Amino acid sequence: MYLEKEINEQAAVLERLLQEQHENVAQIAAAIRDFNPAYIMIAARGTSDNAARYGQYVFGSSTRLPVALSTPSLHTLYEAPPNLSKGLVIGISQSGQAEDVRRVLADARSQGALTVSMTNDEESPMAQAADHHIYLSAGLERSVAATKTYTAELTSVAMLATALSQNSEMVEQLTQLPDLMKSTLDMTANIADWAERYRYMEQFAAIGRGYNYATAFEISLKVKELTYVIGEGYSEADFRHGPIATVNEGFPVIVVAPQGRALPQMLDLLDKLCNKKAELLVISNDSDALGYATKTMSIPEAPEWLSPMLGVVPGQVLAMHLALVRGYAVDRPRGLTKVTVTE
Amino acid sequence: MYLEKEINEQAAVLERLLQEQHENVAQIAAAIRDFNPAYIMIAARGTSDNAARYGQYVFGSSTRLPVALSTPSLHTLYEAPPNLSKGLVIGISQSGQAEDVRRVLADARSQGALTVSMTNDEESPMAQAADHHIYLSAGLERSVAATKTYTAELTSVAMLATALSQNSEMVEQLTQLPDLMKSTLDMTANIADWAERYRYMEQFAAIGRGYNYATAFEISLKVKELTYVIGEGYSEADFRHGPIATVNEGFPVIVVAPQGRALPQMLDLLDKLCNKKAELLVISNDSDALGYATKTMSIPEAPEWLSPMLGVVPGQVLAMHLALVRGYAVDRPRGLTKVTVTE
Repeated sequence: MYLEKEINEQAAVLERLLQEQHENVAQIAAAIRDFNPAYIMIAARGTSDNAARYGQYVFGSSTRLPVALSTPSLHTLYEAPPNLSKGLVIGISQSGQAEDVRRVLADARSQGALTVSMTNDEESPMAQAADHHIYLSAGLERSVAATKTYTAELTSVAMLATALSQNSEMVEQLTQLPDLMKSTLDMTANIADWAERYRYMEQFAAIGRGYNYATAFEISLKVKELTYVIGEGYSEADFRHGPIATVNEGFPVIVVAPQGRALPQMLDLLDKLCNKKAELLVISNDSDALGYATKTMSIPEAPEWLSPMLGVVPGQVLAMHLALVRGYAVDRPRGLTKVTVTE
Repeated sequence: MYLEKEINEQAAVLERLLQEQHENVAQIAAAIRDFNPAYIMIAARGTSDNAARYGQYVFGSSTRLPVALSTPSLHTLYEAPPNLSKGLVIGISQSGQAEDVRRVLADARSQGALTVSMTNDEESPMAQAADHHIYLSAGLERSVAATKTYTAELTSVAMLATALSQNSEMVEQLTQLPDLMKSTLDMTANIADWAERYRYMEQFAAIGRGYNYATAFEISLKVKELTYVIGEGYSEADFRHGPIATVNEGFPVIVVAPQGRALPQMLDLLDKLCNKKAELLVISNDSDALGYATKTMSIPEAPEWLSPMLGVVPGQVLAMHLALVRGYAVDRPRGLTKVTVTE
């Protein structure tokens, strides 16, 4: 099984990425400071789009620039690309083959924007379309469900945000990430003991807020890809605007609620879901949050902005065990291919 | 039942909105042209966030400005608001009470951005927080599930995009919208005849692309709010990146596929879903698309950029009938209130 192996490689991948790309990222950050963009636009699809969602928060809070997620069909289907000449435009893709994302980069570059791609293939079309490239350093990913390339994408985004901010606290915190990832992987071992409880789960929701909005989306995608169970990722705020109506007794909700600025809102939601007798699978490093859990998925103490790399891991492991107890082929889910090219 | 009444008011609401706000919108557009923004940022939650998604496409293609969706928690939880001084910042909310969206407007205005709010209450906090206000002219909406205010929000966005573009074809097409809405409402009458088929539906997906990405999201939200059935809205491109794995024989998929630039991709997806023997509920004005349908929901011929106002209506009507055949209280879904205030 490649999936388990790739999940377990994540500490080593992040260590290699931080080391090998440090100098390159510093040079890209210098070029971006020279360019002095008015905003950042990020283009991505699928799992990589969740890394882009993380980018909205980490670039937003560290650079104070407005950060937009691209709508590639304006470039492809509608042939009405926005004028991106004042922007930093970032494209993210594991394979680097995403044709619509490549088009966003190519259009932006021809308009005079500064472009950066992040891919796991230095020879890919996207790597070549941008002014700068950050190599994810994850090694070949064979399982269709992306895991190590996702946390490598998050970390590449975090590295670039750190280099742009030149904030010494962020620099110091980022160096701890591989060790934190190692601890997280150790802490997920017990998920195998209880995953069977969800053998017949038919639906679920996954909820996060702020930095971990992306985590909720990515866990929801991983569970869907691997188990074919229907569920949705939500921001805690959006969830209260309607979808909370779907929760009744026993409804499984994966709640990503690590320590940080978003925690008070998440605790309030946990309390509300607890009153509805929802089944709560809580990913956290906070004892109050874990206190609401039917099943706890602990992660180590960490700065909130780095918690998305850690918080997604129990979700990856849970999705894998759910697929195993259902007897599914974890490395090749039905109807999916490793590289999806959309226009 | 207020819901049915409010759905049926939509032609009259759009006619009133186009008439009453025409002059105001023209003045706002002139102020925006003077301001000459570098980008547009739209803040909204829930249903209004789907109107914001529509805004990404209609503002993007008509003004060629980059359009971002706001991440309000950077303003509230993280106290790290982006610098929006060069932007046009638009806040959308039915009630005008959304505290986090109001904060985005207030922060942006104090930084020197040009701000516009769109609400259905001229005295609301959001109406007062912005430099300019567009009144949705929808009259009091009593049902918890927003319908007429959603199409009024889409139309306000379309009016502003039209006024900004000064494109005479768009001006002419927009005047036809109330009549197109009238035809659409007439064409939805038959949904009552077959909605019972989905009495025991346990999950679903809703898919659109480009302008109708928003429509898929909004229909998915309406069905969830009113029937508590779990489902998710997707962009056609994102759906292929993983979630398509959840589709097997008989799985109900609501496909929004009107004529326009996005149609070829949608037809290709319909073909793929048909091969998987999915149950296809197709909203379209194209005979090829409707040919794939298990159940057809026809809408009149219309320019693609106006099809979201029409395409959502069969979804609203379907959600209402599903709630009725399940015996639910359609005007007051469990666990929801008309005004949701998040921070």
